Amino acid sequence: MIQEDILQSKDFLDLDSSKAGIGAYELAKILFPINRSITGDGVRETLKIISQTLPSLVQYEVPTGTHCFDWEVPKEWNIKNAYLLDPNGKRILDFKNHNLHVVGYSVPIDKEITLDDLQPHLHSIPEQPSAIPYVTSYYKEQWGFCLEHRQREGLKDGSYRAVIDSSLKQGHMTYGELILPGESKDEILLSTYICHPSMANNELSGPTVTTMLAKWLISQPTLRYTYRIVFIPETIGSICYLSQHMDEMKKNTIAGFNISCVGDNRNYSYLPSRKGNTIADRAAKHVLEHHAANYTQYNFLDRRSDERQYCSIGVDLPVVTVARTLYWHYPEYHTSLDDLTVITPEGLGGGYMAIRRCIECLEENAIMITTMPCEPQFGKRGLFPTLSKGKGSTATVLGKLTAMDLLNLWAYCDGENDLLSIASKINVPLWDLLPAIKALNEQGLLISKI
Amino acid sequence: MIQEDILQSKDFLDLDSSKAGIGAYELAKILFPINRSITGDGVRETLKIISQTLPSLVQYEVPTGTHCFDWEVPKEWNIKNAYLLDPNGKRILDFKNHNLHVVGYSVPIDKEITLDDLQPHLHSIPEQPSAIPYVTSYYKEQWGFCLEHRQREGLKDGSYRAVIDSSLKQGHMTYGELILPGESKDEILLSTYICHPSMANNELSGPTVTTMLAKWLISQPTLRYTYRIVFIPETIGSICYLSQHMDEMKKNTIAGFNISCVGDNRNYSYLPSRKGNTIADRAAKHVLEHHAANYTQYNFLDRRSDERQYCSIGVDLPVVTVARTLYWHYPEYHTSLDDLTVITPEGLGGGYMAIRRCIECLEENAIMITTMPCEPQFGKRGLFPTLSKGKGSTATVLGKLTAMDLLNLWAYCDGENDLLSIASKINVPLWDLLPAIKALNEQGLLISKI
Amino acid sequence: MIQEDILQSKDFLDLDSSKAGIGAYELAKILFPINRSITGDGVRETLKIISQTLPSLVQYEVPTGTHCFDWEVPKEWNIKNAYLLDPNGKRILDFKNHNLHVVGYSVPIDKEITLDDLQPHLHSIPEQPSAIPYVTSYYKEQWGFCLEHRQREGLKDGSYRAVIDSSLKQGHMTYGELILPGESKDEILLSTYICHPSMANNELSGPTVTTMLAKWLISQPTLRYTYRIVFIPETIGSICYLSQHMDEMKKNTIAGFNISCVGDNRNYSYLPSRKGNTIADRAAKHVLEHHAANYTQYNFLDRRSDERQYCSIGVDLPVVTVARTLYWHYPEYHTSLDDLTVITPEGLGGGYMAIRRCIECLEENAIMITTMPCEPQFGKRGLFPTLSKGKGSTATVLGKLTAMDLLNLWAYCDGENDLLSIASKINVPLWDLLPAIKALNEQGLLISKI
Repeated sequence: MIQEDILQSKDFLDLDSSKAGIGAYELAKILFPINRSITGDGVRETLKIISQTLPSLVQYEVPTGTHCFDWEVPKEWNIKNAYLLDPNGKRILDFKNHNLHVVGYSVPIDKEITLDDLQPHLHSIPEQPSAIPYVTSYYKEQWGFCLEHRQREGLKDGSYRAVIDSSLKQGHMTYGELILPGESKDEILLSTYICHPSMANNELSGPTVTTMLAKWLISQPTLRYTYRIVFIPETIGSICYLSQHMDEMKKNTIAGFNISCVGDNRNYSYLPSRKGNTIADRAAKHVLEHHAANYTQYNFLDRRSDERQYCSIGVDLPVVTVARTLYWHYPEYHTSLDDLTVITPEGLGGGYMAIRRCIECLEENAIMITTMPCEPQFGKRGLFPTLSKGKGSTATVLGKLTAMDLLNLWAYCDGENDLLSIASKINVPLWDLLPAIKALNEQGLLISKI
Repeated sequence: MIQEDILQSKDFLDLDSSKAGIGAYELAKILFPINRSITGDGVRETLKIISQTLPSLVQYEVPTGTHCFDWEVPKEWNIKNAYLLDPNGKRILDFKNHNLHVVGYSVPIDKEITLDDLQPHLHSIPEQPSAIPYVTSYYKEQWGFCLEHRQREGLKDGSYRAVIDSSLKQGHMTYGELILPGESKDEILLSTYICHPSMANNELSGPTVTTMLAKWLISQPTLRYTYRIVFIPETIGSICYLSQHMDEMKKNTIAGFNISCVGDNRNYSYLPSRKGNTIADRAAKHVLEHHAANYTQYNFLDRRSDERQYCSIGVDLPVVTVARTLYWHYPEYHTSLDDLTVITPEGLGGGYMAIRRCIECLEENAIMITTMPCEPQFGKRGLFPTLSKGKGSTATVLGKLTAMDLLNLWAYCDGENDLLSIASKINVPLWDLLPAIKALNEQGLLISKI
Repeated sequence: MIQEDILQSKDFLDLDSSKAGIGAYELAKILFPINRSITGDGVRETLKIISQTLPSLVQYEVPTGTHCFDWEVPKEWNIKNAYLLDPNGKRILDFKNHNLHVVGYSVPIDKEITLDDLQPHLHSIPEQPSAIPYVTSYYKEQWGFCLEHRQREGLKDGSYRAVIDSSLKQGHMTYGELILPGESKDEILLSTYICHPSMANNELSGPTVTTMLAKWLISQPTLRYTYRIVFIPETIGSICYLSQHMDEMKKNTIAGFNISCVGDNRNYSYLPSRKGNTIADRAAKHVLEHHAANYTQYNFLDRRSDERQYCSIGVDLPVVTVARTLYWHYPEYHTSLDDLTVITPEGLGGGYMAIRRCIECLEENAIMITTMPCEPQFGKRGLFPTLSKGKGSTATVLGKLTAMDLLNLWAYCDGENDLLSIASKINVPLWDLLPAIKALNEQGLLISKI
């Protein structure tokens, strides 16, 4: 199988955008059919498949009823089957055809019911008649079916039979965690969620791109920072995880990324942390300005995912969301239309690369300090054109850098600006400055202070 | 009389925009014909009428010659009659027809005079030929008449007789003051002026709307702040008042509003304090953004009223002007065209409500502090939808607030932001947040720190 | 000769824009033919001619090999003659026709050479076929000729003879310095360069306008600041000068102006210091807003002249560039087209006046403090209209100031704002405020604190 080649490949030292996009897409295809929720066997199966690519991923189980701040872990939900028979006994909805047909966390039911009584249990979207909506009821026990609005409109009066063969019992909530130790105890958090059933951009793009990022990080010879990578159910998962790890996370986390909706190929998005000016924010903005100049900047008020918890008062981690088209802002969101045609290898690869660039910026960032006043004589060091031409020159002197880029880099290495800030000031991607930093370091002209 | 019903009504516990607008308009109709100036019996009569609605208003008299910083209280000016006879003996201008016909503070005169010699004493506006201009000469003894330019152009050569039966003598300057004690010694200042003769928006809107605000404040069960409400002549009045009360005002005033031009129904205006970022400025901007999104923000350089004194260096009170169409910026300004058709009950009611909202914001403002990390489980408290629907929900969960408004409110209760700042950040009027604050307080999720 | 009249005139007490422009233009005409470089006799001759107008200018010689931070003073270059003979022996390029025909710092050569071998030594601009480019090679020994591209395209195969009768030897680098002592040791730096051969805007406008500024400064009865005025070769000159004077300059310099491209009549430009908010920056912006409202504001990244050194890390002087159309941004830049038709007396006069205004702003700047609260009664002091007219008045009460300008000036004299900041806040040129400052000082209403 093609995905095995890619997913099991040992050669990830240069996991570029293209390879990562294909790898993520292949993994998404495998995971798509599984019925996931905030608890249950679908989560376990999902994590098991990801573990095949990331063997060091550890799976944790948290018992029902565990207290997590103001919340507690709910009962575990599993479902074997569900269907709706029409008055003629025809099976008109079947969970086996699409797992969105059942309201998530529906209690078991087997009942004859008139159409009138059934209607409050049916969910559809009049504005999107061919979409099955994604509906859940985690914290109030009820049941329901979701269906295309055009199908709903064709339902005739009469007696229906509603069958949901689910269970809601004491059990566990499952999550995955992968810690990659770096030279420093300071951590970067990558968080994504594995609680959404069969939808692609929201949310198989998150776990699959995070898997690729983990593979790339594992392949690096050394890591400056420690990486905490979590695959959790949304909201209750992050609240539970925070309740168990908050002290160490508040102490160590220098930046974090909530990874969601990173798979379509239409747009890029940035949603700031609550504070808005953390190093994670600075890295995200710098990267997107060069990686995707037309990206959309959202407001913290637009948050709808686990940044809500990571950026809560009292937690306030420096966590941002770097996404492709953001949740709520694409038409297929939270419906059956968010299928494997919405995400693409290019889309996933672009999302991967945006976050990888952020990580690279953080890994390479340092305070820069020059060692002499006035400009160095770059010419005698081969870093300046020897001939001063009539109309100036835009020739590059080092990698993608012109002589003026080099002078501009030099102009801000005053010990007050870090490289991220300098790169933004001089309008050059940080990653393009790295050869110059290396050269200037080697020539003793520049000191990097981490 | 209709105004008596309204003005004497005891039922002002909910003095809404509509009632207040009618009350102010009726009061303006009564006050309109009176000839006011910075001194004289017109001021006394005006204050007496206002006292019928605000019995606790105290009237003060300051003797001519009293020193007030660089100024001194001028002589008292009163006028019985004034007219101009043309060469045929026809009375072509008469003070009794319109008190703007005489230059304010004109010295007495009874004189035969040729048209040529008369011209320097005549004032009209070529660009507004049907308007009588408003002209004064408080500090240089002279005399003059004001008239419509179209009338002036018809004047024929010959001998005129100019009669002004006025008096300019040792006397007093009169002002009114109303102190409403609150729980705190900290004060809010409301200042308006009662020195303009028969003009409506500038300036009967100010004293009449201020009267309505005072009635509303008096009707409140408790007031957090003490209110200092002054009805004074412009410039010399505020300078004199400041010279007598500066220490206590500088010590106690947390916010103030210069109330002028609050009666037409065309626009809203905000003119900042000298410092520009006081809590009065923050309240004014927050209120107008929600009360009148298209309001005009002026610069402090545009000030032309008593903010000039309240915001002077050495005084520097946190005083702003919240107005309808601002002085200088509407065509009828400072002419006879500024009559009772320029102001309307709707206009006055809107001006009243804008300032009342500012006061409410100040009364309710506090630092907000959450009591737990991560989001509370609002759902189990009935403050969140139990069903998570496919495309999200914009349903309100408390008053006008959606679940997301509630989460956003929560997100900034970090002990660093006051409610005014939070309301601005999350784009919800402060007054709509009050039910949520109450609920969260009651559930122990939030502490308000005044 | 006309220039003698102007340049030797003793009457510079009011060296206005027009006189200064004519003086600078006449001086530029004299200096234009001289072949200048970063070293050599052309620099000496240029400084000698300027000394005739500024007798106190001192000429310094720095030996070849002198260390200046990362650089050293290069060999001295002089040239007697240079030409190119075509295969027919025709002299097709001659240094005596235009000194741009030789690459600056060309080593001596006398050589038969084929056209193919000659081509790498030829420089022209395809996009500007009638322009001779300005090319130099200060730090790598090579030789070359510059010519119009249309001429180059007509060159035929065959054997050419290239003759450059130059010398490159141990010698000196020459610069000029003029110190004008003021009441304070605090200094203002004026820096311009005298290393460009026959080009007018870049760079004879700089030295000639600087000469006029020096004459104007010398003519002042007193100077508050000491003026350090340097005429140096670009880059190596400023680096060398800084290496010799850095301690005193860092200690004393409160503002500085790099004077370059101040001679055409098309635009005005401002290029900020590295820090961007020094008093030099504030003065430059204030002046240009009133002197040339449509000026172009550049970014520090656009710097191409000696600001590069003055604003280097470790030096970081408050130096800005106030120019007419900036280097690199006009079509004739660094070519033979930048001749005496590009600069005009009006252009030079405008450049002179822009910088003179900056100096005036700095000389007059002070913290302003009022001596009483509330507004003074300007009326009794003759500084306010005695008659308050219907529609307000925009009449001036003092010089170009209206009564409102006066009130606005007053409103910011709080001891926190200097005059430069006040003038910017109230949108009045600082120089128009001087009569009011004088009047308010005299009346004891205002204290200026330097």
